Amino acid sequence: MFEQGAQLKARHGAENVFDFSLGNPNLEPPDRFKEVLVDVAKASGSGDHGYMPNTGYASVRQAVAEFLSGEQGVSVTADEVIMTCGAAGALNVILRAILDPGDEVITPAPYFVEYGFYADNHGGVLKTVSTKSDFTLDLQAIQAAITPRTKAVLINSPNNPSGQIYSEGSLLQLGSLLTGEGRRLNRTLYLISDEPYRKITFDGVKVPSMFSCYAESMIATSYSKDLSIPGERIGFLAVNPQATYKEDLLAGMALANRILGYVNAPALMQRAIQSLQGVSVDATIYKKKRDLLCDGLSECGYEFVKPNGAFYLFPKTPIRDDVAFVKALQEELILTVPGSGFGAPGYFRIAFCVDDDTIRQALPGFERVLNGFDHHNTM
Amino acid sequence: MFEQGAQLKARHGAENVFDFSLGNPNLEPPDRFKEVLVDVAKASGSGDHGYMPNTGYASVRQAVAEFLSGEQGVSVTADEVIMTCGAAGALNVILRAILDPGDEVITPAPYFVEYGFYADNHGGVLKTVSTKSDFTLDLQAIQAAITPRTKAVLINSPNNPSGQIYSEGSLLQLGSLLTGEGRRLNRTLYLISDEPYRKITFDGVKVPSMFSCYAESMIATSYSKDLSIPGERIGFLAVNPQATYKEDLLAGMALANRILGYVNAPALMQRAIQSLQGVSVDATIYKKKRDLLCDGLSECGYEFVKPNGAFYLFPKTPIRDDVAFVKALQEELILTVPGSGFGAPGYFRIAFCVDDDTIRQALPGFERVLNGFDHHNTM
Repeated sequence: MFEQGAQLKARHGAENVFDFSLGNPNLEPPDRFKEVLVDVAKASGSGDHGYMPNTGYASVRQAVAEFLSGEQGVSVTADEVIMTCGAAGALNVILRAILDPGDEVITPAPYFVEYGFYADNHGGVLKTVSTKSDFTLDLQAIQAAITPRTKAVLINSPNNPSGQIYSEGSLLQLGSLLTGEGRRLNRTLYLISDEPYRKITFDGVKVPSMFSCYAESMIATSYSKDLSIPGERIGFLAVNPQATYKEDLLAGMALANRILGYVNAPALMQRAIQSLQGVSVDATIYKKKRDLLCDGLSECGYEFVKPNGAFYLFPKTPIRDDVAFVKALQEELILTVPGSGFGAPGYFRIAFCVDDDTIRQALPGFERVLNGFDHHNTM
Repeated sequence: MFEQGAQLKARHGAENVFDFSLGNPNLEPPDRFKEVLVDVAKASGSGDHGYMPNTGYASVRQAVAEFLSGEQGVSVTADEVIMTCGAAGALNVILRAILDPGDEVITPAPYFVEYGFYADNHGGVLKTVSTKSDFTLDLQAIQAAITPRTKAVLINSPNNPSGQIYSEGSLLQLGSLLTGEGRRLNRTLYLISDEPYRKITFDGVKVPSMFSCYAESMIATSYSKDLSIPGERIGFLAVNPQATYKEDLLAGMALANRILGYVNAPALMQRAIQSLQGVSVDATIYKKKRDLLCDGLSECGYEFVKPNGAFYLFPKTPIRDDVAFVKALQEELILTVPGSGFGAPGYFRIAFCVDDDTIRQALPGFERVLNGFDHHNTM
């Protein structure tokens, strides 16, 4: 997508292409990030760019654990944290550690398309289940998908692409479900929470504490979105302090981090984020973009669930064929992603981590394409 | 090993432990690295910490390709280079792209123990073959190991743990062998050259150009050793411009880089190394350490092949059981690694990327342990 967008921009001029296709945050990192980065670069002394334990610097993991304890309302220690190359690295490390060949990972759709690759990388199989019409968890669908091969449920909240945040009530129910089914199958069922958008929420909605909802849980996350530094590949994983096989899991993940070739999360960025716990971009800026986009598209006649978090909108396509609809938008030089790429045909994803002007200027195009199809439909 | 060493140092005092167990370069990065790093951190502007194409910044790949062209004596373009999270990342990306389940990868022993994990990560099987007594390539052994499942030969020169550099003559012969066997099996046999120690060579010995020796070849490398920045995870892979399936290979590797969760090599370090092509630590400092160690151990009576590159010495153990010998050294607070960890029992690895004083002060201990076993042997 990155390359495709670049080609269109080269042909038509960047200012004439409305690129909503990428989850590349357009906000600059907070000023504090840049200050810390320069400080850390200047201060780097003996051995500071060398290897450290595969799990990361002890002092960095300590800082992360302290912040995470407050966020989760559960006391997490440095031993339960492993620094990783972003959330994508964390997920690969977790899956490498827990999956046996043929193991199934259940994820509610719509979902981040890379999950399928991540499970496949490590001999697993991704099984998708539907969500309710407002993209909240359908627990019956999850229960129906559990088999003796199920190893984990993987959730992403705030969700890419829907922006939905799963409620504490539904997560507690999911925890009970996994406890019960695990007991029935005599098998630990893990809950993996991929939450890089945790700090980007709107209207006072908060992402519940996963560690409080289910003991056999682990978190994969990154600083990519809340510090606007996705190219730097810095994140972490954490295992619930109450997980039954905590020590084995963490030992397996430390090994996986090494043998998958990450070895360790980048040293300099580890030292930077140590001083940036709790620092985040201003989520109200994304909220304004969401409102601008939602108000505009609503007026045109698009149907969607207003997102509470992340920077994605996932409207219905007015025709069944979402790929054809996205192509029609492309004719207007509006770049989006078909819902079938997220296991949800009949929808399309608009990433609104773009300039306000891009949103404003694209609205007429969105309207023309929608009207074009309405016209066809009534013929 | 990192953790074990740390524990011993905590117990006995760091100054009393002689840690030769880790390939963590003790030389500081060149001054120029630190200057560039601070400059890059200060100069970071709009989008500089964001996503870029999964293969890396075009300008960085261009700079790498130009330097590599000179080094290999073969014209390499930016399109043939992918920036990676170190050489370990590069190897995982290459193997993910080329291996089908059950495919075999042949590597000459002694070898870097992680290779077995890397092949296994992607459904492959590592097959080791012996080298000659001086650790040079045994082409007959390689030929004998080739089967219809063979996909690649993986070499590491300068070698970890032996420090051996394979000659141009032997690589040309290896190329001919792989061409012939590939034709016989109707199958492309790849040569993967893992060469992070390329710039650390002694006595005027140079590492031959892999791209000149065999068309179906690829390079995995990093800046970890020549800039002393292994914790930063920055390296690259390059595919021979003459490789038959070059475009498919590069497309597969770009995808593998993404789906393995690396996504891209760390942005800031990419921009730093763009300005550091050809900059390297002073290899003559490692040469002095080699000489200090080799002279000292030779006087004690240890037997070894003097290494031409890297910063490892791989002597014979005076008893067959290399693990027992390494444990005996540990009693003297000398930390090394048994050869069986490199597929070569009866040897042990000494990483001499340490202070000169560590080498000097450890020599009496090395001598006592050797003499202790000589005494036993004659009883």
